[in-house]
Amino acid sequence: MLQLLGKNAKKAAVLLGKAGIEEKNQALLAVADALEAKAEYLIEENQKDIEHAKQNQMSEALIDRLALNETRVAGMAEGIRQVVSLEDPIGTVSNMKKRPNGLLIGTKRVPIGVIGIIYESRPNVTADAFSLTFKTGNAVILRGGSDAIHSNTAITNVIRQTLEQCGVTPDAIQLVTDTSRETATKMMQMNGYIDVLIPRGGAGLIRSVVQNATVPVIETGTGNCHVYVDQYADLSMAVKIVDNAKTQRLGTCNTCESLVVHKEIAEKAVPAIVSALKAKDIEIRGDERSMQLDSYIIPATEEDWGTEYLDRIISLKIVDDIDEAIAHINRYNTKHSEAIVTQNYHNAQKFLDEIDAAAVYVNASTRFTDGFEFGFGAEIGISTQKIHARGPMGLEALTTTKYIIYGDGQIRS
Amino acid sequence: MLQLLGKNAKKAAVLLGKAGIEEKNQALLAVADALEAKAEYLIEENQKDIEHAKQNQMSEALIDRLALNETRVAGMAEGIRQVVSLEDPIGTVSNMKKRPNGLLIGTKRVPIGVIGIIYESRPNVTADAFSLTFKTGNAVILRGGSDAIHSNTAITNVIRQTLEQCGVTPDAIQLVTDTSRETATKMMQMNGYIDVLIPRGGAGLIRSVVQNATVPVIETGTGNCHVYVDQYADLSMAVKIVDNAKTQRLGTCNTCESLVVHKEIAEKAVPAIVSALKAKDIEIRGDERSMQLDSYIIPATEEDWGTEYLDRIISLKIVDDIDEAIAHINRYNTKHSEAIVTQNYHNAQKFLDEIDAAAVYVNASTRFTDGFEFGFGAEIGISTQKIHARGPMGLEALTTTKYIIYGDGQIRS
Repeated sequence: MLQLLGKNAKKAAVLLGKAGIEEKNQALLAVADALEAKAEYLIEENQKDIEHAKQNQMSEALIDRLALNETRVAGMAEGIRQVVSLEDPIGTVSNMKKRPNGLLIGTKRVPIGVIGIIYESRPNVTADAFSLTFKTGNAVILRGGSDAIHSNTAITNVIRQTLEQCGVTPDAIQLVTDTSRETATKMMQMNGYIDVLIPRGGAGLIRSVVQNATVPVIETGTGNCHVYVDQYADLSMAVKIVDNAKTQRLGTCNTCESLVVHKEIAEKAVPAIVSALKAKDIEIRGDERSMQLDSYIIPATEEDWGTEYLDRIISLKIVDDIDEAIAHINRYNTKHSEAIVTQNYHNAQKFLDEIDAAAVYVNASTRFTDGFEFGFGAEIGISTQKIHARGPMGLEALTTTKYIIYGDGQIRS
Repeated sequence: MLQLLGKNAKKAAVLLGKAGIEEKNQALLAVADALEAKAEYLIEENQKDIEHAKQNQMSEALIDRLALNETRVAGMAEGIRQVVSLEDPIGTVSNMKKRPNGLLIGTKRVPIGVIGIIYESRPNVTADAFSLTFKTGNAVILRGGSDAIHSNTAITNVIRQTLEQCGVTPDAIQLVTDTSRETATKMMQMNGYIDVLIPRGGAGLIRSVVQNATVPVIETGTGNCHVYVDQYADLSMAVKIVDNAKTQRLGTCNTCESLVVHKEIAEKAVPAIVSALKAKDIEIRGDERSMQLDSYIIPATEEDWGTEYLDRIISLKIVDDIDEAIAHINRYNTKHSEAIVTQNYHNAQKFLDEIDAAAVYVNASTRFTDGFEFGFGAEIGISTQKIHARGPMGLEALTTTKYIIYGDGQIRS
């Protein structure tokens, strides 16, 4: 079955590669309208997933992520309309230069082809992923979780029907309806069909994709993000940034999971930070030095330094200097987002230079690592690997280039 | 052992990431001088590989690829000096923009970190790969073939000694001296140590890396390249380009392996092309229609359309129109280099638009797909995948970016 999906996707990608931006935008607008018009159907199908989730004692928080209602369906449609308003990156030719032999060589931005996306419960990802891959002229094969299978199928149905009505190939979006782990693994090995696979989900999913995929992967997601409060930090700014980075939303990959504090400011900073985090019910696991500064802090183990809690917990380490802070962060981070709070010019630049991460901040919350906050108008995920795209991925991350060369009979000697 | 190499490389990468361009260039120049000064030692060690190869009945052509002499050592040194003269891409900050909330966000070009390279017999790749990865501030772990182990070890020794004399960490370059297949496979799975793995070699090596690697890979190499002689081709230009693309060098990935000819020009073009290729002893395997045009042509099988011969063989197909030509090429090519010969404006643009390959040519030989010919001044390989880099990879392909963000206490609401 996967092979058939692969073949269909490849055919669709050829057609989408030739589609003009007007055609694509019209289809996207029609899809947005159709999702709103069919909201009742979508919510009905979503209800089946919700009931199933309740039977399986899924947590309230996860059921909330899964649930569709009028507002959320309108949100999906609105998201698609925003993608329509973005500039089309496809077709731009850049760096066109004449070589000494007269060859005119330039790079042209083109769709990647077929993109695979494996994701977990939130059904709005189905519409999101479609709009971004479609806008960039790619075909997409989606494999959502079994939790959301009725919702994902319904959303895909509405999109495919609408595309067909617009005279566009419905195979621009295909859903893998067999949600077994075996099928997911097979999807990771669809060389020759899938040009790039993007996993969106928790650490377990990412690990499985990295271990099993033979197609190129863009690794997204896990964030063990740090805030380093430097000796020269503005104390009230530090408390605000730590509070925001940790508590503004607990479950996101750009949430701060670990604090690093310079020993010279620790005596003042630690109690102030503890007081702010304690008020929000955050457990603090610290090293010995930090525990001497506030009795609220409980001991951290080695494992804590490398843990992305996604929960009401944070780890805390006191360091002797900025070099120790940088070494600690580079050792335990997941190369996602890291921040320094300092008023010292040298330390700010040093941190920016030496921290190895997709996004490095001076005096701002790590929570800003996000395609919308960065001004891309959209986001397909946050890459934590170093090749192709790093950090929040907007439309351009879903494209590639090819060299186009205009000659006049040149041969190589 | 690999893990130790990995740890050393990570430490070296931190140091190299901080190194300035002067320091790197001085070390490269010293390495170039040292290789020339130690030519006798390198040739002596290479002799051991040559003797071993002869005992194993290696072909003359392969022994020639393996051999080092004064000229080739001087060539390696010269290659390094050329890399010194290239601009350093590291450190450039681009697209720095102020967001509405006052955050100043830009992307900074930085080294990837640790690059793994698995390659086959030619020992000069050892020096090449070192110079390019070092120039871009990366540490490299090299795994060459067992055929060249003495040569590769000797070259690595000279480089490491010279780096040490320059006060630079010798772990900028490390060689995996165990050339077993098991160790190669383990190297492909050094997640957490190797940031990207680049295989350089034949189809078997590439396949093994794609199948076994769990670290990110940049697939290079195999080229089943086509020349399409359009109905509106200038006939003498077509013959020259086909001849050059096929015969100028037989064993390279940008060599033309398959011809596609429009039926309207076939009657004139096929005999002229046959005559040129026959003179160079090239066997031509064609479809039925082509065989009716010239008795020199022998029948092609389905397998021929997908074969990269790297030999005195070419396949030939007659098509009814440009759409059939494009469909045939997109079906069987390896997404490397494809050329159309035509004087028709519409067909030229259509071919550039619709062919899916790293490099698409109008009226020029496919043999130009090369970092030097494209003006990059260097080449680490030719990527045939769609993510990160596509086509000839120069220095920039060995770098990545990170977002740097200057704030003033911003928190997310």
